Amino acid sequence: MKTVAVLGTGVIGAGWAARLLFNGIDVIAYDPDPAAAEKLRSAIAKAQPALAKLSMVTAGPVGQLHITDDLQAAVAKADFIQENAPERLDVKQDLLVNVSHLAGDDVIIASSTSGFMPSILQQQCRNPQRVIVGHPFNPVYLLPLVEVVAGKLSSDVVIAQAMAFYRQIGMHPLHVRKEIDGHLSDRLQEALWREALHLVNDGVATTDELDQAVIYGPGLRWAIMGTCLTFHLAGGDHGMRHMLEQFGPALKLPWTKLEAPELSADLIEKMVAQTQAQGANKSIVELEQLRDACLVAIMQSLRSFDYAAGATLKAYETRQAASASDRAAATIADADPCQPLRLHSTTVQPDWIDYNGHMTEARYLQVFGDANDAVMRHIGVDAGYLASGFSYYTVETHIRHLNEVSVHQPLVVASQVISADAKRMHLFHALHRGVDGPLLATGEHMMLHVDQGANKAVPAKPAVLEKLLTVAANHAGLDRPDGAGRFVGQGRG
Amino acid sequence: MKTVAVLGTGVIGAGWAARLLFNGIDVIAYDPDPAAAEKLRSAIAKAQPALAKLSMVTAGPVGQLHITDDLQAAVAKADFIQENAPERLDVKQDLLVNVSHLAGDDVIIASSTSGFMPSILQQQCRNPQRVIVGHPFNPVYLLPLVEVVAGKLSSDVVIAQAMAFYRQIGMHPLHVRKEIDGHLSDRLQEALWREALHLVNDGVATTDELDQAVIYGPGLRWAIMGTCLTFHLAGGDHGMRHMLEQFGPALKLPWTKLEAPELSADLIEKMVAQTQAQGANKSIVELEQLRDACLVAIMQSLRSFDYAAGATLKAYETRQAASASDRAAATIADADPCQPLRLHSTTVQPDWIDYNGHMTEARYLQVFGDANDAVMRHIGVDAGYLASGFSYYTVETHIRHLNEVSVHQPLVVASQVISADAKRMHLFHALHRGVDGPLLATGEHMMLHVDQGANKAVPAKPAVLEKLLTVAANHAGLDRPDGAGRFVGQGRG
Repeated sequence: MKTVAVLGTGVIGAGWAARLLFNGIDVIAYDPDPAAAEKLRSAIAKAQPALAKLSMVTAGPVGQLHITDDLQAAVAKADFIQENAPERLDVKQDLLVNVSHLAGDDVIIASSTSGFMPSILQQQCRNPQRVIVGHPFNPVYLLPLVEVVAGKLSSDVVIAQAMAFYRQIGMHPLHVRKEIDGHLSDRLQEALWREALHLVNDGVATTDELDQAVIYGPGLRWAIMGTCLTFHLAGGDHGMRHMLEQFGPALKLPWTKLEAPELSADLIEKMVAQTQAQGANKSIVELEQLRDACLVAIMQSLRSFDYAAGATLKAYETRQAASASDRAAATIADADPCQPLRLHSTTVQPDWIDYNGHMTEARYLQVFGDANDAVMRHIGVDAGYLASGFSYYTVETHIRHLNEVSVHQPLVVASQVISADAKRMHLFHALHRGVDGPLLATGEHMMLHVDQGANKAVPAKPAVLEKLLTVAANHAGLDRPDGAGRFVGQGRG
Repeated sequence: MKTVAVLGTGVIGAGWAARLLFNGIDVIAYDPDPAAAEKLRSAIAKAQPALAKLSMVTAGPVGQLHITDDLQAAVAKADFIQENAPERLDVKQDLLVNVSHLAGDDVIIASSTSGFMPSILQQQCRNPQRVIVGHPFNPVYLLPLVEVVAGKLSSDVVIAQAMAFYRQIGMHPLHVRKEIDGHLSDRLQEALWREALHLVNDGVATTDELDQAVIYGPGLRWAIMGTCLTFHLAGGDHGMRHMLEQFGPALKLPWTKLEAPELSADLIEKMVAQTQAQGANKSIVELEQLRDACLVAIMQSLRSFDYAAGATLKAYETRQAASASDRAAATIADADPCQPLRLHSTTVQPDWIDYNGHMTEARYLQVFGDANDAVMRHIGVDAGYLASGFSYYTVETHIRHLNEVSVHQPLVVASQVISADAKRMHLFHALHRGVDGPLLATGEHMMLHVDQGANKAVPAKPAVLEKLLTVAANHAGLDRPDGAGRFVGQGRG
């Protein structure tokens, strides 16, 4: 498809236009509203940053946008037509009949309708076999789902062509095999939405509370697994069958205003067989691992926005860091201040191991990075200090790998301040197996105190600097560690 | 809380145990099933990798796990009790009454019930003011949501203490202000679930199709915004009010088997006022930008698992890249052999980011380690060579951090062989943002060719050595890279 007519340029029509243009397709946008052109250009511009960021692959040239209030001009040259009129049956039917007479004979006409069945939309149209439903989700330029539904008169070829086209522009076309009011996705959404309206109407909860009840729990799962596979995993080793045994009786309880169907033997078998087919390529344990890995990745992604479950994770980490700092403080209160600091210990995890059976390179730097953080907390660079916009950045690192490290070994770091001044902290870590075990590796780091806003090195705040210089003075009597100041390629001397 | 009794160790009880232990809290797990102990230990072990990965902060020592089939022993020493018996009213009521007589006077007893109201659960209990609902979501060790519900007899202080405790262990406690069957989250989930059961029962769709209808569309939104805020944004500039005008009439349509409440003027005002309050700190445009940024981050996170919407994105990129990839292949074939090798490129993932918003130290070494592997493969150190018992080990590393690296940036490594002989390979990597972008960091590595069985350095096999020496000879004419041979603490000179 080279040219697509987008009919109606509200939130959905504008979303289609943005997606199509970004994929190099020319768009002719039709809207009778004189204010539509400006709104559409603004909506497309707002979609641009996210579209540009989504794919790793540099996009090709964008398509050309034409805007018109002349329906005939809009559809005459289109290879594909996407209708996005208001969700009123008479409005959509009238528009689609007109369009079917103005468009080329075989040009596909897809309606974005949220819930009308294609048979009802196509019945008065010329060449109705090319009239179908292609129902997208806001924001259309990002969300992949588009429900593709045939009416009684639609042809299989048209459905296949529309699916291929939507796939080409980055979408996930879902063929809804039986037309029904609300298709599939909106039936599920609408049930949830109507239940929410009841709860607000009855004064049980606010919209904010209802949204919290989704985004911190079930919503995180729904990003990766639908209700059926989610409940299959909630059933433990026996999956959906156990889930239906455990929660089947609850279908009789007034947990929603929606009456459930009778949980007949036939329905149970359908649910069990179909969810087993869904997970056919993976064991329940593998599905659980995949779910967990995806949930961790999603929550970590949201952490950078300090939003929804990401805000919960961020707040939790801040408290965790404070208690880690307290633990360290308690340990070292009794220690000889003139010896290297023992602020960080850990254990080699199974996923830290490489194909040689040893700890992978990057994990050494993870351990040393955690040791750097522990020294920072020790001198008062805590969550509050970081929040004030100041931190230490590592600018240079030198690692010597001296002995092999294997899974489950206890690792203990001894940290020495080699030198320090207002802006700089030169650290040397010795990584041992256990407290008194062999030396496994050393890490040498130059850290600069930075003003993160100004993005430049500045002196540390007096309280931090005083603690740092005290440690440095205490460590001044220690020998320079073996390997400090080495460069890569230097002889063993 | 130092010790928590977990009563019932199915999927939910085991999830609580894993979360609590990871947070350094001792757990006494009670289950009458003789097989429970082994299942519980296995479930906790399976939760460990995700828990360990979730937070950037190194966790403290884990709690102690005790397993018993003696209810009295389980609750006698507990500071907090979490009940997870099967979802049958008589079972839960009997257990809670027993527990209330065995537990300390003020020890909080929280039920994980999915839908029973706390008033019904607490009524026969001793000291019923400390009996509440604390309803979590599977997997309990990862999902933050816990619904906290008071019964008629519960005290406000107990609710506040429970909320604080759940927050301490990384959760998002949602205070459900009015008790109702199914609380809030399960009412919404259950409406969707019952609609799904109807659709399967009526033969309209399979469980897989219904799950697709969620995970590629509405489910991605539900990870960040609930239905109310989502629909507020779907309403364009006029938000929820426009949304209700546009889709209010659809509440009368048979889009679900659930009857909607009458969309009265009062309900409209409630919905508008409450959603406006939700978005009070941000304009609709700002909320849209936040939503888009989160959706992009989620889909990119899922891309690494090639799963759900991430699979759609990956397939799209593969097609997008097809022609670009052909161009790139041509570029490598034509590449000047006397220039540094471009063998490794990647993208900064969300979980590579530290609390400063930049790529965490260890990930630099991961990228350079991957670049070392790419050079090894380039000279013939492939899976077969490794299987024969020979490899290169890194013995020394030097990293300079020159510019900040942020999430989702494209990274490209240019690799130079500084020197090489039979046993040694001295590599220098330049890490750039994109192919021609700024220099972000450099990595210098000394690698030794080892006989892994004998655990000593030996000469590389002739075929590998010949390729390595050819690259070294080609690179002999290159300038020594800026920063090569530096030691930590050396002046900028």
